[in-house]
Amino acid sequence: MSADAADGILILTTGGTIDKLYFDALSEYRIGDSVVDRLLRTARSTLPVRVEELMRKDSLDLTDDDRAAIAAAVRAAPERRVVITHGTDTMTDTAAALGDSGGRTVALLGALAPARFAESDATFNLGMAVATVQVAAPGVYIAMNGTVFAADRVRKDRSVNAFVAR
Amino acid sequence: MSADAADGILILTTGGTIDKLYFDALSEYRIGDSVVDRLLRTARSTLPVRVEELMRKDSLDLTDDDRAAIAAAVRAAPERRVVITHGTDTMTDTAAALGDSGGRTVALLGALAPARFAESDATFNLGMAVATVQVAAPGVYIAMNGTVFAADRVRKDRSVNAFVAR
Amino acid sequence: MSADAADGILILTTGGTIDKLYFDALSEYRIGDSVVDRLLRTARSTLPVRVEELMRKDSLDLTDDDRAAIAAAVRAAPERRVVITHGTDTMTDTAAALGDSGGRTVALLGALAPARFAESDATFNLGMAVATVQVAAPGVYIAMNGTVFAADRVRKDRSVNAFVAR
Amino acid sequence: MSADAADGILILTTGGTIDKLYFDALSEYRIGDSVVDRLLRTARSTLPVRVEELMRKDSLDLTDDDRAAIAAAVRAAPERRVVITHGTDTMTDTAAALGDSGGRTVALLGALAPARFAESDATFNLGMAVATVQVAAPGVYIAMNGTVFAADRVRKDRSVNAFVAR
Repeated sequence: MSADAADGILILTTGGTIDKLYFDALSEYRIGDSVVDRLLRTARSTLPVRVEELMRKDSLDLTDDDRAAIAAAVRAAPERRVVITHGTDTMTDTAAALGDSGGRTVALLGALAPARFAESDATFNLGMAVATVQVAAPGVYIAMNGTVFAADRVRKDRSVNAFVAR
Repeated sequence: MSADAADGILILTTGGTIDKLYFDALSEYRIGDSVVDRLLRTARSTLPVRVEELMRKDSLDLTDDDRAAIAAAVRAAPERRVVITHGTDTMTDTAAALGDSGGRTVALLGALAPARFAESDATFNLGMAVATVQVAAPGVYIAMNGTVFAADRVRKDRSVNAFVAR
Repeated sequence: MSADAADGILILTTGGTIDKLYFDALSEYRIGDSVVDRLLRTARSTLPVRVEELMRKDSLDLTDDDRAAIAAAVRAAPERRVVITHGTDTMTDTAAALGDSGGRTVALLGALAPARFAESDATFNLGMAVATVQVAAPGVYIAMNGTVFAADRVRKDRSVNAFVAR
Repeated sequence: MSADAADGILILTTGGTIDKLYFDALSEYRIGDSVVDRLLRTARSTLPVRVEELMRKDSLDLTDDDRAAIAAAVRAAPERRVVITHGTDTMTDTAAALGDSGGRTVALLGALAPARFAESDATFNLGMAVATVQVAAPGVYIAMNGTVFAADRVRKDRSVNAFVAR
C-alpha cells in the first residue's frame, strides 16, 4: 500500500435517496448517477478522493450478499479512510456488517431528501462524513441529522424520520 | 457548567464571505444575517446548538481587539465544542489567537463563495466543522476545501484561492 | 366586476409534478403545498395576484368532473387573466375543456421536474405564463419548453418528454 | 432573411447584476459569463435561440455609444424577436434608445439579485421576456418584478429597489 493511497479517501456509493432523480415520464423516482463528484466540486475540495460505485439500490432492497460486498470493498481498500453513501432505512444494518473494518475509519451517510432538491441534507451530511474519516479514531460512524453517531449507538426512528441515539 | 451545555455545540459567527448578501441598489455586497440557522435547518440537524453573533466583519478588517474578543468568547463558553464562522483571509490568524482554547475542540470555517449562491462551499464546510468538534481531539482546526487542517499547519494561498497545508 | 379584479391575475393550482415533494419515510413523492407563492416572492413580483388551490392531483388522475370544475373556476373568475398550474400528461385535454374561457387570456404551465429540485423548469415556465396572460390576445396557451404554444397546436411527446408543436 | 431566422429568438447580453459573480480573492462582484445558456437548459427550452454577448457592463457604466451599439445590433438582427439582458439602473434609457426597433418585438430584463444566487429573480424574468417576444405585439417591453411593462411607461424606483409603472 502506497503512502498516497493511505492518505486519500475512498468514497463508495451504494444508492439510496441521496441519489434519487425524478422521472416525469414515469411519475416516479429512480436512483441516478452519484452526486458525490458534483458535491465535492461545489465544496472546492482539494482532497485526494477515489469514488467507486458499488451498486444503485434502495437500502430496503439490499441483501446479505450486498452487505457482504460492501464490507469486502472496505476491507480491500488501500485507503484507511472510507466514506459510504447509503439509503437510510438499513444504514445501521450495513454498518453492523462492516465489523471493525480492518482498523479503518468509516463513515456512512445518506440523505432524507434527494441531493438534487434545492433543500437537501445531502451536502451537509457528506461534509460531516468526509471530516469524520479525517479526524475520528478508527471505527464505524453514521453522519446524519447534524450528528456523528457511533454506528452501534444509533437507530433510524421512522416516526420522526430522523436518526436518534439509542 | 451543566452537563447539557457541555454536550451542546456553540457556533460563533463573525462575518466573512459566507454571510455576504448582494445589494443591487448599491451594486455591492454586504455581510447579512448569519446563514447558520438556515443551513442547520436544511441539514435537519437535531443537535443541541447555540448560535451567537459576535460581529459582522470582513476578516481583513478584524483588529487585535476583535480577535481577543473571539478568543474570550470561546473561553467563556460552557460548551466544550465550538464552531466559528469567519472570513477566509485572516482565519489562520484568529485560529492562532485562540491559543489552546482551554482544552476545547474548536473548528473554524468560512466560504469562498457566499452561502446564498446556488453553488457555495458553505454548507459542506459547516458540515465538516460540526463533525470535527464532535469527534476530533481537543485543539483548533480549520475546515476548508474538503479538508480538516490542524490550525497551525495550513495557510490560505491567494494565488489559487484555496487553503493548503504548510 | 371591479377594475382592480380585472387588472389582477388569478392563479389556479391543480397539482402535478411542479408541486411534488419527496417523502423518504415512504420512498415516494406526493403533491405538496403549491410552490407558486414562493416562486413569485423569489421573483420579487409586485403584481396583484390571487392564488387559489383547486385540487392536488396527478394530471393522469383528473376526471371529466375535475376538468369541468377547472373550467367553471376560470369562467367564474372576475380576473380577465388566468394562470393554471397543472400536471403535464393531460394538460392539453384540460386546455381543450376550457373552450374560449369567456374571452379571457389563460396560460397553463407545469414542470417536468419538481419545483423543489435545484434544477427545475418550474420557475421559467411560471414566468412565461405570467407574462403571456399580460400581453397575449385572449385565448388559451400552454407555456412549456421555452415556448408559448396556442393550446390547440401542441401535444406532449412522451418519447422525448417535451411539448412539441402539432 | 430566412424563415428560420425570422422564427427564432435573438438574446443579446450586455452585463448587469444578472451575470454577477463573486470573487473571494478580491472580495467583490464582477460580471461573469452570461447565465442565459444555463437558464435555458434548466428550462428545457427547445426554442431556436441565438445568444450573442455584446458587452459586460454595469448599466451605470453604459455610454451613449454603447446604447447605439445595442440598438444597431437589434436592427441588424434577422430575428423579429429580441431579448436583451441588461443592468437595471439604466434599462429604461436603453429601451428608449431602441426607438421602434424596426418593427421587432423586444423585451429587456435584468435581475435584482445575481442569477448565481439560490434566490434570484433572473430565471423568472428571463421566462417572462422569452414569452413576451413570442406573443406580444411589436414594441419594446421591460420584464421585471412579475410584470411586463411597456418600456415607456415604467421607471426603476431605487427607494424600493423595484420597477414601477409611471
